[in-house]
Amino acid sequence: MTREPSIYLQNCPSRAVIGVIASHWGTLVLGTLFDGTLRYTEIRRSIEGISEKMLAQTLQSLERSGFVVRRVHPVIPPHVDYTLTPMGMQVASQARGLLDWVTANMGDIVEAQHAYDAGRAETRG
Amino acid sequence: MTREPSIYLQNCPSRAVIGVIASHWGTLVLGTLFDGTLRYTEIRRSIEGISEKMLAQTLQSLERSGFVVRRVHPVIPPHVDYTLTPMGMQVASQARGLLDWVTANMGDIVEAQHAYDAGRAETRG
Repeated sequence: MTREPSIYLQNCPSRAVIGVIASHWGTLVLGTLFDGTLRYTEIRRSIEGISEKMLAQTLQSLERSGFVVRRVHPVIPPHVDYTLTPMGMQVASQARGLLDWVTANMGDIVEAQHAYDAGRAETRG
Repeated sequence: MTREPSIYLQNCPSRAVIGVIASHWGTLVLGTLFDGTLRYTEIRRSIEGISEKMLAQTLQSLERSGFVVRRVHPVIPPHVDYTLTPMGMQVASQARGLLDWVTANMGDIVEAQHAYDAGRAETRG
């Protein structure tokens, strides 16, 4: 690279990486894989609401950036599983940290949301 | 809440919070505000490529969940600025951690992407 990467610049390749990791599905897939190798079907089952297409795209982007290794096992029936690389472990631990933080703080967050909505209703009324 | 929040369940309100924080723009806005209070126009300028609409939506979602405080200053001309709440500081420090990690590791990530693309080109050839 001829210049320092900056996620604040629109055309820096790092912006695209942020687009994958810092996405709804990217974060959830990384958070799930943080516990260890999983089969495709196991990931799909553990993240309610993720479509086949979104999961396949997310896993492919994570594989392309070197965060995940995909292995095809030539058994009958064949199966495919996914494991974090050492680099992927670092990203996934941050994703998991964020997910755990949100889970732990949902009480306060929901309270803030109710106060905000009530304030807006008052302004309108 | 009657049950533990789980970001892995489709209809849990925590999933929507993840949708805001763990998004391309949410992460970048939080990362930017981590350094201190900023005017709307300063945030817009520091994140290349963010549209008026996306920035307004992102800031409103962050405000609603209690991460950001919006202040309108009755000066001439009036200006609006945004500051992280203590809860927002916690989320933003995680967002910033992720952004800094990506910036620091872009060399390895780009290398992995080139290797992946070369492997696929070989398979096709």
